[in-house]
Amino acid sequence: MTEAEKTIDLNADLGEGFGPWQMGDDPAMLDVVTSANVACGFHAGDPDIMAKTFALAREKGVAVGAHVSFPDLAGFGRREIAMTPKEIEHAVAYQLGAAQALAAYAGHRIAYVKAHGALANIAEKDAGVADALARATHAVDPTLTLLGIALSEQTRAGVRAGLNVAHEIFADRAYLDDARLQPRREPGAVITDCKAAIARMREMLEEGALVTISGKRLPTPIDSICVHGDTAHAVEIAQGLRAALAQDGYRLRPFVEG
Amino acid sequence: MTEAEKTIDLNADLGEGFGPWQMGDDPAMLDVVTSANVACGFHAGDPDIMAKTFALAREKGVAVGAHVSFPDLAGFGRREIAMTPKEIEHAVAYQLGAAQALAAYAGHRIAYVKAHGALANIAEKDAGVADALARATHAVDPTLTLLGIALSEQTRAGVRAGLNVAHEIFADRAYLDDARLQPRREPGAVITDCKAAIARMREMLEEGALVTISGKRLPTPIDSICVHGDTAHAVEIAQGLRAALAQDGYRLRPFVEG
Amino acid sequence: MTEAEKTIDLNADLGEGFGPWQMGDDPAMLDVVTSANVACGFHAGDPDIMAKTFALAREKGVAVGAHVSFPDLAGFGRREIAMTPKEIEHAVAYQLGAAQALAAYAGHRIAYVKAHGALANIAEKDAGVADALARATHAVDPTLTLLGIALSEQTRAGVRAGLNVAHEIFADRAYLDDARLQPRREPGAVITDCKAAIARMREMLEEGALVTISGKRLPTPIDSICVHGDTAHAVEIAQGLRAALAQDGYRLRPFVEG
Amino acid sequence: MTEAEKTIDLNADLGEGFGPWQMGDDPAMLDVVTSANVACGFHAGDPDIMAKTFALAREKGVAVGAHVSFPDLAGFGRREIAMTPKEIEHAVAYQLGAAQALAAYAGHRIAYVKAHGALANIAEKDAGVADALARATHAVDPTLTLLGIALSEQTRAGVRAGLNVAHEIFADRAYLDDARLQPRREPGAVITDCKAAIARMREMLEEGALVTISGKRLPTPIDSICVHGDTAHAVEIAQGLRAALAQDGYRLRPFVEG
Repeated sequence: MTEAEKTIDLNADLGEGFGPWQMGDDPAMLDVVTSANVACGFHAGDPDIMAKTFALAREKGVAVGAHVSFPDLAGFGRREIAMTPKEIEHAVAYQLGAAQALAAYAGHRIAYVKAHGALANIAEKDAGVADALARATHAVDPTLTLLGIALSEQTRAGVRAGLNVAHEIFADRAYLDDARLQPRREPGAVITDCKAAIARMREMLEEGALVTISGKRLPTPIDSICVHGDTAHAVEIAQGLRAALAQDGYRLRPFVEG
Repeated sequence: MTEAEKTIDLNADLGEGFGPWQMGDDPAMLDVVTSANVACGFHAGDPDIMAKTFALAREKGVAVGAHVSFPDLAGFGRREIAMTPKEIEHAVAYQLGAAQALAAYAGHRIAYVKAHGALANIAEKDAGVADALARATHAVDPTLTLLGIALSEQTRAGVRAGLNVAHEIFADRAYLDDARLQPRREPGAVITDCKAAIARMREMLEEGALVTISGKRLPTPIDSICVHGDTAHAVEIAQGLRAALAQDGYRLRPFVEG
Repeated sequence: MTEAEKTIDLNADLGEGFGPWQMGDDPAMLDVVTSANVACGFHAGDPDIMAKTFALAREKGVAVGAHVSFPDLAGFGRREIAMTPKEIEHAVAYQLGAAQALAAYAGHRIAYVKAHGALANIAEKDAGVADALARATHAVDPTLTLLGIALSEQTRAGVRAGLNVAHEIFADRAYLDDARLQPRREPGAVITDCKAAIARMREMLEEGALVTISGKRLPTPIDSICVHGDTAHAVEIAQGLRAALAQDGYRLRPFVEG
Repeated sequence: MTEAEKTIDLNADLGEGFGPWQMGDDPAMLDVVTSANVACGFHAGDPDIMAKTFALAREKGVAVGAHVSFPDLAGFGRREIAMTPKEIEHAVAYQLGAAQALAAYAGHRIAYVKAHGALANIAEKDAGVADALARATHAVDPTLTLLGIALSEQTRAGVRAGLNVAHEIFADRAYLDDARLQPRREPGAVITDCKAAIARMREMLEEGALVTISGKRLPTPIDSICVHGDTAHAVEIAQGLRAALAQDGYRLRPFVEG
């Protein structure tokens, strides 16, 4: 009798250029990750970049999700905009549909939805906004998966809406005891050392739990590791995490694969 | 033996507000037309207005199409933008997908695609741009219909792409001998008298042909009559055309209905 | 010995169309008010509408101010955007300069700055944001006046920055005891009866004070009465207020006139 | 008796980031050029980037101009938009004013106006558009200089409008016999070799003429050399040109300096 295969997904934000401007090294990241969160034109991305990113992801066998945001190009979706849950639902549906169409155009298929930036931060804690995200996704296509931050309102809202939910953790961020990410501006919030990130990821996968800064274990399913695509050593760290996972016997594959 | 039922469609541009701004009387027009060309956020419309318009159209049994445009809110899509056919394809797919998602969200379904403003004008004469429009539509969903100006590159491109094509005529515009619309700025180009519009429409339907300003007949299938939604007497003229069609024994129904 | 002449200003928001969309009846309002708060393209207005509005205001002898906002056309500037005070300073300077140039182009001159929508609401209470507004104004042109809500952080910030400050009251809104406007959603917050609005305005002018819903008097200079331009009976109410002021012996003139 | 001092200006496009996106190496270029054409938010740039760029230019003693464009962030102002001359006038005034205000905010002063991208290309040949550019500039501030392509409609329109005009040549582009730039897509249109660019520049300065690909000399005043800021070796080439000019006895200084 053989042991069940261990699988894991690596996801990163891609397609984050706009018009003449580039961000990150998409071709390199697409060689490392198994799922790409593709910007939909509200915080980054435009129809040309989306088409190109979906085509490249298809070519490299990388699953794609709609990375939905507040409408805020100038602020890269990182600024909260006082929109009602209903307005957020409409904005999410709009972006998701646009992404589905351009994925279809490129011969690919949107497999999941993930919130970006300020929208993600709010949906982490605010059940009303998280429900808006999940409801919009379900209304457009109930077979889509919601990729949400583990132990957040995002994943709970996905379950409430009847969606498939994938739980993600961050290898390079510190967790507070309430399962929230330590704010970036605080010292130690972001782990920039590749070895440290690998160690943290391994600990969380072994324990099946978030490990907080005080050492608490918060049990959670873990379907995907989020890696960053736009920092200085993004590709390097992602490669390091991937190599470590392979070494530990994980098969890397999208969380939504058949 | 009974005569085959005569059917015809009336289409108008709707959902053309943006943010706090309104345009036209959508609820009144939705009581008259059988197909609504709904703005997709590039020349007018936003996710909230789209959701509202699709919901109202569904409620009133009106078919909906994605009214796609150059990205030009400030110019209402009436200004040509020097985009390549490939960029136009991506922009069309983006808008179409957004419309499909918000229609699904509202319990409705996009049945067709129609070009707006400057994009429509160019696609009327430029086979390359018309093909871009048709290709994008086909790539996103080959079961969609292309609603195009009768005897234009639009409808020819739809046929080339393997799409269902619906041919529309204008009751209130004068035609040149090459089947093109007389430019708006020329005297007589726009017919504002309701009776005159009705007479022209009847003549074209009877003849199965465009009737040009010189009296030429240009045979064409006629699936839909385009009525304007944003002029002073828009609703009145649309009602007049509808009444005349009913009187002539036409059943009004969307061209895409089962 | 003659009594000193009593003067007062009436201000309203104008130039609030965008592209093909209109809002309010600007020509009618410009016959009533003495100061026009002109949208600068961030919540409404565009270069064409701005040029047209400044030209019309000049023709009618109406003073003009830059009505500055968060960058939010879709939300008409009514949604808070999480911008830093420094970002707000830059955004205010940008809009103010654009307005100055288009006023110059139209042969007019920007006399003052006023905050719009969510930016105004925040600057009413948040000294940091109010200071950003005042600092930006001063940096661009220290001779400009800041038109601010009476007894708010706006007017205090103007004083701190060394600007001329004009204090405005609302004839058609109820005041709380802390000098803030009662939120619109609460019953009685908005006065839609013209006679009631006139009576309230007279009471406040006579007392030289805001009169709150509990009957408290909060003394303040009063340089301008704000009237709304976009409600159903906007023009009518503005005309009623103007007639009442004239009857009471006020000369209507811009607060910034020589 | 001493020989009159030879002076020349080097100009480059700067401040071409947008929101989170960067373009070029502005600090490095500001050490080389004497005039910076700063994007005004229509094709690139935003209020924050403008403020930062003006502050840095002031610090380094670099003159600044408003680099005005069609409203087209997604297309970086490189796509023609079918705007009327009147609409272009308004758009130019808007951008110029915004730039003046943010320059004032940063303690600097806009010295000139230059057209960018598609607007520049059209204004090179179309007298109507060139006049719109010059008229808008003159209306906002008649003391501003128009920096225009030598022997183009741009400089002629500046003269017609009564503006100071500065004539620029390109060291790294080939000229046709009608004084127009050879289209970029044609072989040889862009000179990427630093030595070749220096040689061409020297030849044109010595001759006081454009030197065309057929060897023709087209006499023109030359006030400024345009260098590119966004290509791979932009800084290097600019440094090479600057060093060559210094070697030839030129003092580098803004064309608008006292």
